[in-house]
Amino acid sequence: MIERLCVIGVGLIGGSLARALRANGSVGEVVGCGRSRRNLERAVELGVVDRFDHDPAKAVAGADMVLLAVPLGSMQDVFTALAPGLRADAVLTDAGSAKRSVIDAARLAFGRVPPRFVPGHPIAGTERSGVEASFAELYQRRRTILTPLPDTDADAVTRVRAMWESAGSEVSEMDPAHHDEVLAATSHLPHLLAYTLVDVLGGMEERVEIFRYAGAGFRDFTRIASSDPQMWHDICLANNDALVDVLERFTDELLECTEAVRAGDGKRIRDLFVRAKARRDRYIQESGA
Amino acid sequence: MIERLCVIGVGLIGGSLARALRANGSVGEVVGCGRSRRNLERAVELGVVDRFDHDPAKAVAGADMVLLAVPLGSMQDVFTALAPGLRADAVLTDAGSAKRSVIDAARLAFGRVPPRFVPGHPIAGTERSGVEASFAELYQRRRTILTPLPDTDADAVTRVRAMWESAGSEVSEMDPAHHDEVLAATSHLPHLLAYTLVDVLGGMEERVEIFRYAGAGFRDFTRIASSDPQMWHDICLANNDALVDVLERFTDELLECTEAVRAGDGKRIRDLFVRAKARRDRYIQESGA
Repeated sequence: MIERLCVIGVGLIGGSLARALRANGSVGEVVGCGRSRRNLERAVELGVVDRFDHDPAKAVAGADMVLLAVPLGSMQDVFTALAPGLRADAVLTDAGSAKRSVIDAARLAFGRVPPRFVPGHPIAGTERSGVEASFAELYQRRRTILTPLPDTDADAVTRVRAMWESAGSEVSEMDPAHHDEVLAATSHLPHLLAYTLVDVLGGMEERVEIFRYAGAGFRDFTRIASSDPQMWHDICLANNDALVDVLERFTDELLECTEAVRAGDGKRIRDLFVRAKARRDRYIQESGA
Repeated sequence: MIERLCVIGVGLIGGSLARALRANGSVGEVVGCGRSRRNLERAVELGVVDRFDHDPAKAVAGADMVLLAVPLGSMQDVFTALAPGLRADAVLTDAGSAKRSVIDAARLAFGRVPPRFVPGHPIAGTERSGVEASFAELYQRRRTILTPLPDTDADAVTRVRAMWESAGSEVSEMDPAHHDEVLAATSHLPHLLAYTLVDVLGGMEERVEIFRYAGAGFRDFTRIASSDPQMWHDICLANNDALVDVLERFTDELLECTEAVRAGDGKRIRDLFVRAKARRDRYIQESGA
Protein backbone atom coordinates (compact mmCIF):
# COMPACT_ATOMS: atom_id res chain seq x y z
CA MET A 1 0.00 0.00 0.00
CA ILE A 2 1.29 3.42 -1.00
CA GLU A 3 0.16 6.23 1.25
CA ARG A 4 0.97 9.16 -0.96
CA LEU A 5 2.11 8.71 -4.55
CA CYS A 6 3.59 11.66 -6.40
CA VAL A 7 3.43 11.33 -10.18
CA ILE A 8 5.67 13.75 -12.02
CA GLY A 9 4.45 13.88 -15.58
CA VAL A 10 0.75 12.98 -15.57
CA GLY A 11 0.48 11.71 -19.13
CA LEU A 12 -0.34 8.34 -20.66
CA ILE A 13 2.23 6.47 -18.54
CA GLY A 14 1.96 8.28 -15.20
CA GLY A 15 -1.79 8.81 -15.49
CA SER A 16 -2.47 5.16 -16.32
CA LEU A 17 -0.48 3.96 -13.31
CA ALA A 18 -2.35 6.36 -11.00
CA ARG A 19 -5.68 5.20 -12.42
CA ALA A 20 -4.75 1.51 -11.96
CA LEU A 21 -3.62 1.96 -8.35
CA ARG A 22 -6.65 4.05 -7.45
CA ALA A 23 -8.99 1.56 -9.11
CA ASN A 24 -7.82 -1.27 -6.85
CA GLY A 25 -7.24 0.79 -3.71
CA SER A 26 -3.45 0.38 -3.58
CA VAL A 27 -2.84 4.07 -3.06
CA GLY A 28 -4.08 6.66 -0.59
CA GLU A 29 -3.48 10.08 -2.13
CA VAL A 30 -2.09 10.90 -5.57
CA VAL A 31 -0.32 14.22 -6.12
CA GLY A 32 0.40 15.30 -9.68
CA CYS A 33 3.26 17.46 -10.92
CA GLY A 34 4.03 18.86 -14.33
CA ARG A 35 4.38 21.98 -16.38
CA SER A 36 1.02 22.18 -18.12
CA ARG A 37 -1.67 23.59 -15.84
CA ARG A 38 -4.38 22.54 -18.28
CA ASN A 39 -3.21 18.91 -18.29
CA LEU A 40 -3.02 18.82 -14.48
CA GLU A 41 -6.45 20.43 -14.08
CA ARG A 42 -7.80 17.82 -16.46
CA ALA A 43 -6.08 15.12 -14.38
CA VAL A 44 -7.96 16.36 -11.30
CA GLU A 45 -11.26 16.51 -13.23
CA LEU A 46 -10.74 12.96 -14.48
CA GLY A 47 -10.00 11.79 -10.93
CA VAL A 48 -6.47 10.67 -11.90
CA VAL A 49 -4.83 12.83 -9.20
CA ASP A 50 -6.24 14.44 -6.04
CA ARG A 51 -4.26 17.66 -6.37
CA PHE A 52 -1.17 19.01 -8.05
CA ASP A 53 1.75 21.34 -7.66
CA HIS A 54 4.00 22.66 -10.43
CA ASP A 55 7.02 22.68 -8.11
CA PRO A 56 8.54 19.18 -7.85
CA ALA A 57 9.97 19.85 -4.36
CA LYS A 58 6.51 20.78 -3.08
CA ALA A 59 4.74 18.03 -5.02
CA VAL A 60 6.92 15.26 -3.52
CA ALA A 61 6.57 16.56 0.06
CA GLY A 62 5.33 13.75 2.29
CA ALA A 63 5.15 11.22 -0.55
CA ASP A 64 6.38 7.69 0.21
CA MET A 65 6.51 6.84 -3.51
CA VAL A 66 7.57 9.15 -6.34
CA LEU A 67 7.30 8.21 -10.03
CA LEU A 68 9.04 10.23 -12.70
CA ALA A 69 7.16 9.76 -15.96
CA VAL A 70 8.76 12.62 -17.87
CA PRO A 71 10.74 12.63 -21.14
CA LEU A 72 14.28 11.31 -20.72
CA GLY A 73 15.74 14.72 -21.49
CA SER A 74 13.99 16.19 -18.43
CA MET A 75 14.99 13.55 -15.87
CA GLN A 76 18.08 15.28 -14.50
CA ASP A 77 16.33 18.63 -14.06
CA VAL A 78 13.39 16.97 -12.34
CA PHE A 79 15.64 14.96 -9.99
CA THR A 80 17.47 18.19 -9.08
CA ALA A 81 14.25 20.11 -8.56
CA LEU A 82 12.53 17.50 -6.39
CA ALA A 83 15.55 16.65 -4.19
CA PRO A 84 15.00 19.38 -1.56
CA GLY A 85 11.43 18.15 -0.84
CA LEU A 86 12.01 14.39 -0.87
CA ARG A 87 11.36 12.41 2.32
CA ALA A 88 14.51 10.53 3.35
CA ASP A 89 12.66 7.21 3.25
CA ALA A 90 10.74 7.91 0.04
CA VAL A 91 11.11 5.41 -2.80
CA LEU A 92 11.91 7.04 -6.11
CA THR A 93 11.36 5.35 -9.45
CA ASP A 94 10.92 6.28 -13.08
CA ALA A 95 9.33 5.00 -16.28
CA GLY A 96 12.01 6.00 -18.77
CA SER A 97 12.52 3.90 -21.91
CA ALA A 98 16.34 3.90 -21.64
CA LYS A 99 17.81 3.03 -18.26
CA ARG A 100 21.49 3.95 -18.30
CA SER A 101 20.69 7.57 -19.11
CA VAL A 102 18.24 7.89 -16.20
CA ILE A 103 20.80 6.36 -13.84
CA ASP A 104 23.37 8.88 -15.10
CA ALA A 105 20.87 11.70 -14.61
CA ALA A 106 20.23 10.60 -11.01
CA ARG A 107 23.96 10.38 -10.34
CA LEU A 108 24.50 13.90 -11.69
CA ALA A 109 21.54 15.35 -9.80
CA PHE A 110 22.18 13.69 -6.42
CA GLY A 111 25.97 13.30 -6.52
CA ARG A 112 25.47 9.51 -6.41
CA VAL A 113 22.65 7.18 -7.41
CA PRO A 114 20.33 7.21 -4.38
CA PRO A 115 19.91 3.70 -2.89
CA ARG A 116 16.15 4.18 -2.78
CA PHE A 117 15.98 5.05 -6.48
CA VAL A 118 14.77 2.03 -8.52
CA PRO A 119 15.12 2.55 -12.27
CA GLY A 120 12.09 1.06 -14.01
CA HIS A 121 10.42 0.74 -17.39
CA PRO A 122 6.86 -0.41 -18.00
CA ILE A 123 6.77 -1.78 -21.56
CA ALA A 124 3.40 -0.40 -22.43
CA GLY A 125 2.02 2.54 -24.28
CA THR A 126 0.01 3.63 -27.25
CA GLU A 127 0.81 6.26 -29.85
CA ARG A 128 -1.33 8.73 -27.88
CA SER A 129 -0.12 11.00 -25.09
CA GLY A 130 -1.41 13.23 -22.29
CA VAL A 131 -3.66 12.39 -19.35
CA GLU A 132 -6.69 12.13 -21.64
CA ALA A 133 -5.05 9.09 -23.23
CA SER A 134 -4.48 7.30 -19.90
CA PHE A 135 -6.49 4.27 -18.80
CA ALA A 136 -6.32 1.93 -15.83
CA GLU A 137 -5.83 -1.23 -17.92
CA LEU A 138 -2.71 -0.08 -19.77
CA TYR A 139 -0.35 -2.29 -17.75
CA GLN A 140 -2.43 -5.43 -17.61
CA ARG A 141 -0.51 -8.40 -19.03
CA ARG A 142 2.41 -6.07 -19.88
CA ARG A 143 5.95 -6.45 -18.65
CA THR A 144 7.77 -3.98 -16.48
CA ILE A 145 11.55 -4.17 -16.25
CA LEU A 146 13.39 -2.91 -13.17
CA THR A 147 17.13 -2.32 -13.44
CA PRO A 148 18.35 -1.91 -9.84
CA LEU A 149 22.07 -1.38 -9.22
CA PRO A 150 24.10 -3.57 -6.82
CA ASP A 151 23.64 -1.08 -3.98
CA THR A 152 19.96 -0.33 -4.62
CA ASP A 153 17.92 -0.85 -1.44
CA ALA A 154 16.16 -4.23 -1.60
CA ASP A 155 13.09 -2.91 0.20
CA ALA A 156 12.75 -0.13 -2.37
CA VAL A 157 12.89 -2.69 -5.19
CA THR A 158 10.23 -4.77 -3.45
CA ARG A 159 7.93 -1.78 -3.11
CA VAL A 160 8.31 -0.70 -6.76
CA ARG A 161 7.79 -4.28 -7.91
CA ALA A 162 4.61 -4.51 -5.82
CA MET A 163 3.34 -1.23 -7.31
CA TRP A 164 3.66 -2.41 -10.92
CA GLU A 165 2.29 -5.85 -10.10
CA SER A 166 -0.70 -4.25 -8.49
CA ALA A 167 -1.27 -2.37 -11.78
CA GLY A 168 -1.40 -5.76 -13.52
CA SER A 169 2.14 -5.92 -14.87
CA GLU A 170 4.62 -8.81 -14.82
CA VAL A 171 7.88 -7.54 -13.35
CA SER A 172 11.41 -8.64 -14.35
CA GLU A 173 14.83 -7.43 -13.27
CA MET A 174 17.66 -6.85 -15.68
CA ASP A 175 21.02 -5.18 -16.00
CA PRO A 176 20.57 -1.58 -17.28
CA ALA A 177 22.83 -2.08 -20.31
CA HIS A 178 21.01 -5.29 -21.22
CA HIS A 179 17.70 -3.47 -20.97
CA ASP A 180 18.94 -0.73 -23.26
CA GLU A 181 20.17 -3.21 -25.84
CA VAL A 182 16.91 -5.18 -25.86
CA LEU A 183 14.74 -2.08 -26.06
CA ALA A 184 16.90 -0.52 -28.78
CA ALA A 185 16.10 -3.60 -30.87
CA THR A 186 12.40 -4.12 -30.17
CA SER A 187 11.24 -0.57 -29.63
CA HIS A 188 13.64 2.25 -30.46
CA LEU A 189 14.71 0.88 -33.85
CA PRO A 190 11.12 0.15 -35.00
CA HIS A 191 10.09 3.69 -34.07
CA LEU A 192 12.99 5.15 -36.02
CA LEU A 193 12.15 2.96 -39.02
CA ALA A 194 8.49 3.94 -38.93
CA TYR A 195 9.25 7.67 -38.68
CA THR A 196 11.80 7.36 -41.48
CA LEU A 197 9.43 5.45 -43.75
CA VAL A 198 6.62 7.95 -43.32
CA ASP A 199 9.04 10.80 -43.95
CA VAL A 200 10.44 9.22 -47.12
CA LEU A 201 6.92 8.61 -48.43
CA GLY A 202 5.91 12.13 -47.44
CA GLY A 203 8.73 13.36 -49.67
CA MET A 204 7.33 11.37 -52.60
CA GLU A 205 3.75 12.43 -51.90
CA GLU A 206 3.84 15.58 -54.04
CA ARG A 207 4.56 13.55 -57.12
CA VAL A 208 2.26 10.62 -56.52
CA GLU A 209 -0.65 10.15 -54.15
CA ILE A 210 1.18 7.70 -51.96
CA PHE A 211 -0.93 7.63 -48.83
CA ARG A 212 -4.28 7.47 -50.56
CA TYR A 213 -3.62 3.88 -51.57
CA ALA A 214 -2.05 2.66 -48.35
CA GLY A 215 -3.75 -0.37 -46.84
CA ALA A 216 -4.29 -1.79 -43.39
CA GLY A 217 -0.80 -3.27 -43.23
CA PHE A 218 0.68 0.18 -43.70
CA ARG A 219 -1.58 1.63 -41.03
CA ASP A 220 -0.36 -0.92 -38.46
CA PHE A 221 3.25 -0.69 -39.58
CA THR A 222 3.33 3.09 -39.18
CA ARG A 223 1.15 3.41 -36.07
CA ILE A 224 4.20 4.13 -33.91
CA ALA A 225 5.13 7.06 -36.19
CA SER A 226 2.23 8.91 -34.56
CA SER A 227 4.02 8.75 -31.20
CA ASP A 228 5.21 11.87 -29.40
CA PRO A 229 8.24 13.22 -31.36
CA GLN A 230 9.85 14.92 -28.35
CA MET A 231 9.71 11.76 -26.28
CA TRP A 232 11.22 9.68 -29.06
CA HIS A 233 13.83 12.31 -29.80
CA ASP A 234 14.91 12.03 -26.17
CA ILE A 235 14.97 8.22 -26.31
CA CYS A 236 17.08 8.16 -29.49
CA LEU A 237 19.61 10.52 -27.97
CA ALA A 238 19.60 8.85 -24.54
CA ASN A 239 20.15 5.36 -25.93
CA ASN A 240 22.11 6.33 -29.00
CA ASP A 241 24.98 3.85 -28.68
CA ALA A 242 22.71 0.81 -28.38
CA LEU A 243 20.45 2.22 -31.07
CA VAL A 244 23.31 2.89 -33.50
CA ASP A 245 24.53 -0.66 -32.93
CA VAL A 246 21.23 -2.23 -33.93
CA LEU A 247 20.70 0.35 -36.70
CA GLU A 248 23.98 -0.79 -38.23
CA ARG A 249 22.98 -4.46 -38.04
CA PHE A 250 19.67 -3.58 -39.65
CA THR A 251 21.19 -1.44 -42.40
CA ASP A 252 23.75 -4.13 -43.25
CA GLU A 253 21.01 -6.70 -43.71
CA LEU A 254 18.81 -4.24 -45.60
CA LEU A 255 21.63 -3.48 -48.03
CA GLU A 256 22.16 -7.20 -48.61
CA CYS A 257 18.45 -7.62 -49.11
CA THR A 258 18.38 -4.72 -51.59
CA GLU A 259 21.15 -6.38 -53.57
CA ALA A 260 19.21 -9.66 -53.59
CA VAL A 261 16.10 -7.86 -54.88
CA ARG A 262 18.11 -5.98 -57.49
CA ALA A 263 19.81 -9.18 -58.65
CA GLY A 264 16.56 -11.15 -58.60
CA ASP A 265 18.14 -13.61 -56.14
CA GLY A 266 14.92 -15.41 -55.30
CA LYS A 267 16.44 -18.04 -53.03
CA ARG A 268 17.97 -15.45 -50.74
CA ILE A 269 14.75 -13.45 -50.51
CA ARG A 270 12.62 -16.52 -49.88
CA ASP A 271 15.01 -17.82 -47.21
CA LEU A 272 14.93 -14.46 -45.43
CA PHE A 273 11.13 -14.22 -45.53
CA VAL A 274 10.61 -17.84 -44.46
CA ARG A 275 13.01 -17.42 -41.53
CA ALA A 276 11.42 -14.12 -40.45
CA LYS A 277 7.85 -15.39 -40.70
CA ALA A 278 8.73 -18.47 -38.62
CA ARG A 279 10.37 -16.26 -35.98
CA ARG A 280 7.49 -13.80 -35.89
CA ASP A 281 4.86 -16.55 -35.69
CA ARG A 282 6.81 -18.14 -32.82
CA TYR A 283 7.01 -14.80 -31.00
CA ILE A 284 3.25 -14.33 -31.31
CA GLN A 285 2.63 -17.87 -30.10
CA GLU A 286 4.97 -17.49 -27.12
CA SER A 287 3.68 -14.07 -26.15
CA GLY A 288 0.08 -15.24 -26.43
CA ALA A 289 -0.62 -12.03 -28.35
CA MET B 1 -24.50 -9.97 -62.36
CA ILE B 2 -21.91 -12.65 -63.02
CA GLU B 3 -23.32 -15.96 -64.22
CA ARG B 4 -20.34 -18.16 -63.59
CA LEU B 5 -17.23 -16.93 -61.81
CA CYS B 6 -14.07 -18.99 -61.91
CA VAL B 7 -11.66 -18.22 -59.09
CA ILE B 8 -8.17 -19.57 -59.68
CA GLY B 9 -6.43 -19.58 -56.32
CA VAL B 10 -9.12 -19.91 -53.64
CA GLY B 11 -7.21 -18.31 -50.76
CA LEU B 12 -7.73 -15.19 -48.67
CA ILE B 13 -8.13 -12.92 -51.71
CA GLY B 14 -10.04 -15.14 -54.12
CA GLY B 15 -12.10 -16.76 -51.37
CA SER B 16 -13.12 -13.45 -49.83
CA LEU B 17 -14.29 -12.09 -53.18
CA ALA B 18 -16.36 -15.23 -53.83
CA ARG B 19 -17.89 -15.00 -50.35
CA ALA B 20 -18.77 -11.31 -50.82
CA LEU B 21 -20.40 -11.86 -54.22
CA ARG B 22 -22.33 -14.89 -53.02
CA ALA B 23 -23.47 -13.05 -49.91
CA ASN B 24 -25.17 -10.33 -51.95
CA GLY B 25 -26.34 -12.48 -54.81
CA SER B 26 -24.11 -10.93 -57.50
CA VAL B 27 -22.93 -14.29 -58.79
CA GLY B 28 -24.64 -17.44 -60.01
CA GLU B 29 -22.12 -20.25 -59.79
CA VAL B 30 -18.57 -20.14 -58.45
CA VAL B 31 -16.00 -22.62 -59.71
CA GLY B 32 -12.70 -22.95 -57.86
CA CYS B 33 -9.34 -23.94 -59.25
CA GLY B 34 -6.03 -24.55 -57.57
CA ARG B 35 -3.40 -27.13 -56.78
CA SER B 36 -4.29 -28.12 -53.23
CA ARG B 37 -7.18 -30.59 -53.16
CA ARG B 38 -7.57 -30.12 -49.42
CA ASN B 39 -7.94 -26.35 -49.74
CA LEU B 40 -10.49 -26.71 -52.54
CA GLU B 41 -12.49 -29.34 -50.67
CA ARG B 42 -12.51 -27.01 -47.69
CA ALA B 43 -13.70 -24.20 -49.99
CA VAL B 44 -16.67 -26.35 -51.03
CA GLU B 45 -17.42 -27.27 -47.39
CA LEU B 46 -17.31 -23.60 -46.41
CA GLY B 47 -19.65 -22.71 -49.27
CA VAL B 48 -17.06 -20.45 -50.89
CA VAL B 49 -17.20 -22.32 -54.22
CA ASP B 50 -19.80 -24.67 -55.68
CA ARG B 51 -17.31 -27.05 -57.25
CA PHE B 52 -13.71 -27.15 -58.39
CA ASP B 53 -11.37 -28.49 -61.02
CA HIS B 54 -7.59 -28.67 -60.80
CA ASP B 55 -7.24 -28.05 -64.54
CA PRO B 56 -7.52 -24.32 -65.31
CA ALA B 57 -8.82 -24.96 -68.85
CA LYS B 58 -11.67 -27.09 -67.49
CA ALA B 59 -12.31 -24.79 -64.52
CA VAL B 60 -12.82 -21.71 -66.72
CA ALA B 61 -15.13 -23.52 -69.18
CA GLY B 62 -18.34 -21.55 -69.54
CA ALA B 63 -17.27 -18.85 -67.07
CA ASP B 64 -18.13 -15.26 -67.99
CA MET B 65 -15.70 -13.91 -65.36
CA VAL B 66 -12.32 -15.39 -64.40
CA LEU B 67 -10.22 -14.11 -61.49
CA LEU B 68 -6.59 -15.12 -61.07
CA ALA B 69 -5.70 -14.82 -57.40
CA VAL B 70 -2.44 -16.77 -57.54
CA PRO B 71 1.10 -15.72 -56.62
CA LEU B 72 2.69 -13.42 -59.21
CA GLY B 73 5.23 -16.07 -60.13
CA SER B 74 2.45 -18.42 -61.24
CA MET B 75 0.47 -15.96 -63.40
CA GLN B 76 2.06 -16.81 -66.74
CA ASP B 77 1.67 -20.56 -66.29
CA VAL B 78 -1.95 -20.16 -65.25
CA PHE B 79 -2.74 -17.86 -68.19
CA THR B 80 -1.19 -20.44 -70.53
CA ALA B 81 -3.04 -23.31 -68.90
CA LEU B 82 -6.48 -21.69 -68.91
CA ALA B 83 -6.32 -20.24 -72.45
CA PRO B 84 -7.67 -23.33 -74.29
CA GLY B 85 -10.86 -23.38 -72.17
CA LEU B 86 -11.63 -19.67 -72.02
CA ARG B 87 -14.91 -18.43 -73.57
CA ALA B 88 -14.18 -15.81 -76.26
CA ASP B 89 -16.33 -13.25 -74.46
CA ALA B 90 -15.11 -14.07 -70.93
CA VAL B 91 -13.68 -11.23 -68.86
CA LEU B 92 -10.34 -12.08 -67.30
CA THR B 93 -8.90 -10.22 -64.33
CA ASP B 94 -6.36 -10.75 -61.58
CA ALA B 95 -5.56 -9.62 -58.06
CA GLY B 96 -1.78 -9.39 -58.28
CA SER B 97 0.09 -6.84 -56.15
CA ALA B 98 2.34 -5.68 -59.00
CA LYS B 99 0.68 -4.88 -62.30
CA ARG B 100 3.38 -4.58 -64.97
CA SER B 101 4.56 -8.12 -64.30
CA VAL B 102 1.05 -9.57 -64.70
CA ILE B 103 0.57 -7.65 -67.94
CA ASP B 104 3.91 -9.05 -69.18
CA ALA B 105 2.82 -12.54 -68.13
CA ALA B 106 -0.44 -12.19 -70.08
CA ARG B 107 1.43 -10.90 -73.12
CA LEU B 108 3.82 -13.87 -73.01
CA ALA B 109 1.05 -16.40 -72.48
CA PHE B 110 -1.41 -15.08 -75.10
CA GLY B 111 1.00 -13.52 -77.61
CA ARG B 112 -0.60 -10.14 -76.84
CA VAL B 113 -2.44 -8.69 -73.88
CA PRO B 114 -6.06 -9.84 -74.41
CA PRO B 115 -8.46 -6.88 -74.71
CA ARG B 116 -10.81 -8.52 -72.22
CA PHE B 117 -8.07 -8.90 -69.60
CA VAL B 118 -8.39 -6.17 -66.93
CA PRO B 119 -5.38 -6.04 -64.58
CA GLY B 120 -6.58 -5.35 -61.04
CA HIS B 121 -5.41 -5.14 -57.47
CA PRO B 122 -7.65 -5.08 -54.40
CA ILE B 123 -5.66 -3.34 -51.66
CA ALA B 124 -6.80 -5.57 -48.88
CA GLY B 125 -5.49 -8.53 -47.00
CA THR B 126 -4.38 -9.79 -43.66
CA GLU B 127 -1.23 -11.67 -42.71
CA ARG B 128 -3.20 -14.92 -42.94
CA SER B 129 -3.66 -17.04 -46.06
CA GLY B 130 -5.75 -19.91 -47.42
CA VAL B 131 -9.51 -20.23 -47.83
CA GLU B 132 -9.97 -20.62 -44.05
CA ALA B 133 -8.75 -17.03 -43.67
CA SER B 134 -11.25 -15.62 -46.19
CA PHE B 135 -14.27 -13.56 -45.17
CA ALA B 136 -16.97 -11.68 -47.07
CA GLU B 137 -16.18 -8.28 -45.53
CA LEU B 138 -12.51 -8.13 -46.52
CA TYR B 139 -13.08 -5.60 -49.31
CA GLN B 140 -15.49 -3.30 -47.56
CA ARG B 141 -14.20 0.26 -47.49
CA ARG B 142 -10.98 -0.89 -49.23
CA ARG B 143 -9.68 0.40 -52.51
CA THR B 144 -9.24 -1.63 -55.65
CA ILE B 145 -7.00 -0.32 -58.42
CA LEU B 146 -7.57 -1.33 -62.03
CA THR B 147 -4.78 -0.69 -64.53
CA PRO B 148 -6.37 -1.16 -67.96
CA LEU B 149 -4.25 -0.59 -71.07
CA PRO B 150 -5.28 1.79 -73.88
CA ASP B 151 -6.79 -1.08 -75.88
CA THR B 152 -8.48 -2.85 -72.98
CA ASP B 153 -12.17 -3.40 -73.73
CA ALA B 154 -14.26 -0.74 -71.96
CA ASP B 155 -17.09 -3.18 -71.27
CA ALA B 156 -14.65 -5.57 -69.57
CA VAL B 157 -13.39 -2.75 -67.33
CA THR B 158 -16.99 -1.85 -66.45
CA ARG B 159 -17.75 -5.43 -65.49
CA VAL B 160 -14.64 -5.84 -63.31
CA ARG B 161 -15.29 -2.49 -61.66
CA ALA B 162 -18.87 -3.54 -60.88
CA MET B 163 -17.63 -6.81 -59.39
CA TRP B 164 -15.29 -5.13 -56.91
CA GLU B 165 -17.82 -2.43 -56.09
CA SER B 166 -20.37 -5.08 -55.35
CA ALA B 167 -17.85 -6.58 -52.88
CA GLY B 168 -17.78 -3.21 -51.11
CA SER B 169 -14.61 -1.79 -52.60
CA GLU B 170 -13.94 1.69 -53.99
CA VAL B 171 -12.45 1.31 -57.46
CA SER B 172 -9.82 3.60 -59.06
CA GLU B 173 -8.00 3.39 -62.37
CA MET B 174 -4.31 4.04 -62.70
CA ASP B 175 -1.38 3.57 -65.05
CA PRO B 176 0.34 0.21 -64.31
CA ALA B 177 3.76 1.80 -63.67
CA HIS B 178 2.21 4.36 -61.34
CA HIS B 179 0.46 1.58 -59.45
CA ASP B 180 3.72 -0.33 -59.06
CA GLU B 181 5.54 2.74 -57.76
CA VAL B 182 2.82 3.59 -55.21
CA LEU B 183 2.53 0.02 -53.96
CA ALA B 184 6.30 -0.42 -53.76
CA ALA B 185 6.29 2.51 -51.32
CA THR B 186 3.26 1.75 -49.17
CA SER B 187 3.23 -2.02 -49.21
CA HIS B 188 6.23 -3.82 -50.68
CA LEU B 189 8.85 -1.75 -48.85
CA PRO B 190 7.11 -2.03 -45.44
CA HIS B 191 6.89 -5.81 -45.84
CA LEU B 192 10.59 -6.02 -46.69
CA LEU B 193 11.45 -3.82 -43.68
CA ALA B 194 9.32 -5.89 -41.33
CA TYR B 195 10.80 -9.19 -42.53
CA THR B 196 14.32 -7.74 -42.29
CA LEU B 197 13.76 -6.38 -38.78
CA VAL B 198 12.44 -9.67 -37.45
CA ASP B 199 15.32 -11.53 -39.08
CA VAL B 200 17.94 -9.18 -37.61
CA LEU B 201 16.39 -9.53 -34.15
CA GLY B 202 16.15 -13.28 -34.61
CA GLY B 203 19.91 -13.27 -35.16
CA MET B 204 20.40 -11.43 -31.83
CA GLU B 205 17.94 -13.66 -29.98
CA GLU B 206 20.47 -16.32 -28.97
CA ARG B 207 22.44 -13.78 -27.00
CA VAL B 208 19.62 -11.79 -25.45
CA GLU B 209 15.95 -12.58 -25.05
CA ILE B 210 14.86 -9.99 -27.54
CA PHE B 211 11.29 -11.00 -28.28
CA ARG B 212 10.28 -11.66 -24.71
CA TYR B 213 10.28 -7.95 -23.99
CA ALA B 214 8.67 -6.75 -27.19
CA GLY B 215 5.60 -4.60 -26.66
CA ALA B 216 2.38 -3.91 -28.54
CA GLY B 217 4.08 -1.44 -30.89
CA PHE B 218 6.45 -4.15 -32.05
CA ARG B 219 3.57 -6.58 -32.54
CA ASP B 220 1.77 -4.14 -34.87
CA PHE B 221 4.98 -3.10 -36.62
CA THR B 222 5.91 -6.68 -37.46
CA ARG B 223 2.43 -8.08 -38.17
CA ILE B 224 3.13 -8.08 -41.92
CA ALA B 225 6.23 -10.24 -41.35
CA SER B 226 3.80 -13.10 -40.71
CA SER B 227 2.57 -12.84 -44.31
CA ASP B 228 3.06 -15.64 -46.84
CA PRO B 229 6.80 -15.71 -47.73
CA GLN B 230 6.28 -17.19 -51.20
CA MET B 231 3.76 -14.53 -52.14
CA TRP B 232 6.02 -11.73 -50.96
CA HIS B 233 9.05 -13.31 -52.59
CA ASP B 234 7.12 -13.19 -55.88
CA ILE B 235 6.08 -9.57 -55.32
CA CYS B 236 9.63 -8.43 -54.54
CA LEU B 237 10.94 -10.06 -57.69
CA ALA B 238 8.02 -8.95 -59.88
CA ASN B 239 8.25 -5.31 -58.82
CA ASN B 240 11.96 -5.20 -58.15
CA ASP B 241 12.82 -2.01 -60.04
CA ALA B 242 10.20 0.11 -58.26
CA LEU B 243 11.07 -1.58 -54.98
CA VAL B 244 14.80 -0.99 -55.34
CA ASP B 245 14.09 2.67 -56.12
CA VAL B 246 12.15 3.23 -52.90
CA LEU B 247 14.55 1.01 -50.93
CA GLU B 248 17.38 3.31 -51.98
CA ARG B 249 15.47 6.41 -50.94
CA PHE B 250 14.71 4.76 -47.61
CA THR B 251 18.28 3.58 -47.01
CA ASP B 252 19.68 7.03 -47.83
CA GLU B 253 17.43 8.66 -45.26
CA LEU B 254 18.09 5.90 -42.73
CA LEU B 255 21.84 6.39 -43.08
CA GLU B 256 21.42 10.14 -42.55
CA CYS B 257 19.25 9.44 -39.55
CA THR B 258 21.84 7.02 -38.14
CA GLU B 259 24.49 9.71 -38.45
CA ALA B 260 22.22 12.19 -36.64
CA VAL B 261 21.67 9.69 -33.80
CA ARG B 262 25.37 8.89 -33.60
CA ALA B 263 26.29 12.58 -33.55
CA GLY B 264 23.53 13.44 -31.06
CA ASP B 265 22.06 15.91 -33.59
CA GLY B 266 18.83 16.51 -31.70
CA LYS B 267 17.42 19.13 -34.02
CA ARG B 268 17.62 16.88 -37.04
CA ILE B 269 16.02 13.95 -35.23
CA ARG B 270 13.25 16.09 -33.79
CA ASP B 271 12.53 17.72 -37.16
CA LEU B 272 12.28 14.30 -38.81
CA PHE B 273 9.97 12.90 -36.12
CA VAL B 274 7.74 16.00 -36.03
CA ARG B 275 7.40 15.96 -39.84
CA ALA B 276 6.64 12.23 -39.92
CA LYS B 277 4.11 12.34 -37.09
CA ALA B 278 2.26 15.23 -38.77
CA ARG B 279 2.20 13.31 -42.06
CA ARG B 280 1.05 10.10 -40.44
CA ASP B 281 -1.67 11.83 -38.40
CA ARG B 282 -2.89 13.56 -41.58
CA TYR B 283 -2.98 10.23 -43.42
CA ILE B 284 -5.06 8.66 -40.65
CA GLN B 285 -7.41 11.63 -40.61
CA GLU B 286 -7.84 11.60 -44.39
CA SER B 287 -8.28 7.86 -44.61
CA GLY B 288 -10.78 7.89 -41.78
CA ALA B 289 -8.91 4.91 -40.35
